[in-house]
Amino acid sequence: MSKETFNVDKNGDFSNWFNRIIREAQLIDDRYNVKGFIVHRPWSMSMLKQIYRLYEDELEERGHKPVLFPTVIPEDNLSKEEEHVEGFKAEVFWITHGGDDKLEKKLALRPTSETAFYPLYALWIRSISDLPLKLYQSCSVFRYETKSTKPLVRGREFLWIEAHDVFATEEEAHKQVEEDMEIAEEVVYKKLGIPFIFLERPQWDKFKGAVKTFAADCIMPDGKLLQIASTHYLGQRFSKAFEITFLDADGTRKYAYQTCYGPGIWRILAAVISIHGDDNGLILPFEIAPIQVIVVPIFAKEHRELVEKYCMEICRSLKEAGFRVGVDLSDKTPGAKYYYWEMMGVPIRAEVGLREVEAKHVTLFRRDNRSRMTVQLDGLVETVKKLGYEALQNIKRKAEEFLELRAFKAKTFDEVRDLADKGGFIIAPFCSIDFDGESCAIRLKETLGLEVRGIPLKNRVKPSEEEKCIVCGRKAGEYVYLGKAY
Amino acid sequence: MSKETFNVDKNGDFSNWFNRIIREAQLIDDRYNVKGFIVHRPWSMSMLKQIYRLYEDELEERGHKPVLFPTVIPEDNLSKEEEHVEGFKAEVFWITHGGDDKLEKKLALRPTSETAFYPLYALWIRSISDLPLKLYQSCSVFRYETKSTKPLVRGREFLWIEAHDVFATEEEAHKQVEEDMEIAEEVVYKKLGIPFIFLERPQWDKFKGAVKTFAADCIMPDGKLLQIASTHYLGQRFSKAFEITFLDADGTRKYAYQTCYGPGIWRILAAVISIHGDDNGLILPFEIAPIQVIVVPIFAKEHRELVEKYCMEICRSLKEAGFRVGVDLSDKTPGAKYYYWEMMGVPIRAEVGLREVEAKHVTLFRRDNRSRMTVQLDGLVETVKKLGYEALQNIKRKAEEFLELRAFKAKTFDEVRDLADKGGFIIAPFCSIDFDGESCAIRLKETLGLEVRGIPLKNRVKPSEEEKCIVCGRKAGEYVYLGKAY
Repeated sequence: MSKETFNVDKNGDFSNWFNRIIREAQLIDDRYNVKGFIVHRPWSMSMLKQIYRLYEDELEERGHKPVLFPTVIPEDNLSKEEEHVEGFKAEVFWITHGGDDKLEKKLALRPTSETAFYPLYALWIRSISDLPLKLYQSCSVFRYETKSTKPLVRGREFLWIEAHDVFATEEEAHKQVEEDMEIAEEVVYKKLGIPFIFLERPQWDKFKGAVKTFAADCIMPDGKLLQIASTHYLGQRFSKAFEITFLDADGTRKYAYQTCYGPGIWRILAAVISIHGDDNGLILPFEIAPIQVIVVPIFAKEHRELVEKYCMEICRSLKEAGFRVGVDLSDKTPGAKYYYWEMMGVPIRAEVGLREVEAKHVTLFRRDNRSRMTVQLDGLVETVKKLGYEALQNIKRKAEEFLELRAFKAKTFDEVRDLADKGGFIIAPFCSIDFDGESCAIRLKETLGLEVRGIPLKNRVKPSEEEKCIVCGRKAGEYVYLGKAY
Repeated sequence: MSKETFNVDKNGDFSNWFNRIIREAQLIDDRYNVKGFIVHRPWSMSMLKQIYRLYEDELEERGHKPVLFPTVIPEDNLSKEEEHVEGFKAEVFWITHGGDDKLEKKLALRPTSETAFYPLYALWIRSISDLPLKLYQSCSVFRYETKSTKPLVRGREFLWIEAHDVFATEEEAHKQVEEDMEIAEEVVYKKLGIPFIFLERPQWDKFKGAVKTFAADCIMPDGKLLQIASTHYLGQRFSKAFEITFLDADGTRKYAYQTCYGPGIWRILAAVISIHGDDNGLILPFEIAPIQVIVVPIFAKEHRELVEKYCMEICRSLKEAGFRVGVDLSDKTPGAKYYYWEMMGVPIRAEVGLREVEAKHVTLFRRDNRSRMTVQLDGLVETVKKLGYEALQNIKRKAEEFLELRAFKAKTFDEVRDLADKGGFIIAPFCSIDFDGESCAIRLKETLGLEVRGIPLKNRVKPSEEEKCIVCGRKAGEYVYLGKAY
């Protein structure tokens, strides 16, 4: 075929597939001349905007409100919570000059915004009537990554949402952590079709400054895990460092309980691209596709005007119904157009030739399962809506099967070793996710390249009395999820 | 009255009014501990999001697509267009370190993104078929301002949109400049009710690197001008500096023509707040009000449940119709609630007492003209829509009258001096807006504090042969608009 065909073996060499699709579908340009910083082109940025919209709607639905804090954080703020600054200071970009002047105090580009938000929270929160306080911002954050960067997966600037919530009680804060997980489920699973598992991270791998971290891992086509969101129970650690107190109904002043939540918007896009795509290119969820229906005219020269006019009519009626629609009036052959829009992942293609014009029909092609059907023009809007929904259910189901097939159980180090290259999760008995399990985790990482990703919050089963840690042989405290990760 | 009443003389002391309303309506917190950086609270951020949405929709409607370039720009890029770097280098924040490492090349926090976009444009644009290219991004920019900062008006970080467009011909580029002005008209004037005048800025006051700059000035309540958007004809200056060329249909390679456009999203909000507000607080345009209708229950204790239930029914039916609605169930008195929501600028208040419940009525109060009317519940949605539209027309008309009354004509320096403190525009004969008029402009600024803001693009009248520049007495080349400005 001509060079318009994208035909790359996704499962055979995922890394090559990923690097080619982000370039050829014009998602990302990684030729910007600063290492780790990329350019989002319209096909990527349109989807990021849609993912933001879905997430923001869901957060606001549950009582969050939008704010925007400065991009810069003074060094003093950053240093207030001891573990937090230790965790982040090696990764901070520092602004030291304005014009030719040296700044009096150097400023961090926010790596995360706890230390920007919380001094203001200390001013805003006075009494129990100010709680709960649930605010979020959508923004870029910056980390001086020393690991190798990868577009949409690990960068020195990336897009996320951060929600910072404050409560009067520990119970409410724990409930918020659960709500954060539900929000991820609503958006990432239900609307985008990406399944994931929330795991309580081991103490050595938590967010620095948190009491507990829960993070969502999905499985990429190469079997490696990708963390797409995390929510943190902060307890009173930050409220004590930043003096966030409230006057309770009983007349006493108390430290508040806090949580924070960070869905990684562009990692979610990375998962969508990678997990749903196939050898022909992208397969986009209907909800976020920049173009949901592409109309392709097919004609002999003498019918061009007639067919194109009918195409514009189809386009208009779909647009009026609120769909994002395009008509491909370029001079390419229909075949070349088909291949192009398949690579771009447009969920539905409307094929329109003389036959369709005459019968007042439209032929619809579904990208996800390559099925075709013909509908009457006056039933088009309803059918498109239905097909969009069905396509999402189909790719979601496939993604779920992939995930379910990649959870392996192992009882011994040898069994784990045999499974280590299969990808996905290995579930195995382990001594502890507290700090005294860290040395076992280091050994696992060094010998097999596997990370201890943690334990699930729900359906948690404790090992029996006889089970031993696969590394040290001490009594196992938990079944942990292991895996290789991005 | 109780302290809930906002009662501040806007026209008597606008500066005090502005500082108080942004604090008391919880729009902005300026206590963040870095000079010139502020925090947007939910009431501000919700409106900024709406203004972004309106502007982005209008840009996309006219063929623009969203992108996102990095926040950082290497020094090399910034230096490629000579006038541009001269204009911006004193205002750039520099990132010099990552963790403890000194960076190999220092990075600018974008003050504007021509020099981030255009190296990639040089890669993306190959032939005439790649043109026009019309891309925008919504983002923060950063300027190390030495002038005193003012929340929403002048800051070291501020929110804007920047559109960067590329064309094959000069004519198309000039047309884009006009389209940019139309877009401002659609959003800022038609949807937000803020009138403004686009003026071609003098050469000494243009965007550095542009051939010509056109900027929109509105008049703030204290008579000072506020620039809320600007569009720039760049000619081939940047295309030559960045080698942006295309293969034309005639087989030759040519330099492209460019424009860029920068609506200042938070300055638009500053204008909306300032121009529409009154002594009782904010008056928000229906289109962007975070809450469009606030429902206030009024009851004797024994009817509380009944009245509140009816309020929730009203709320639900308005929400279903797509409005942003709140119900104030707090323990404040109805009077205190009235004052609070008037200060917050909510366009419509629904007052609901036992009488309304029994008659299945709602009493609606309009914030802008303080009128009241009673409607049947089943006509509520239609009425709210109509009132929202009428309220916008009313505040728009008032704002226009204010602007029209503040354009004064003067023929001599003495006449200009007598008008100098009246605020708004003074239109006077002036030698030239080319560089040879700059010394006259400096004298005007030094003696009367007036700036030469430029000449209108439309309805431009040339001075007669006898008319003289009000400063140097040479033959006048133009009628220019003068004014004091933020």
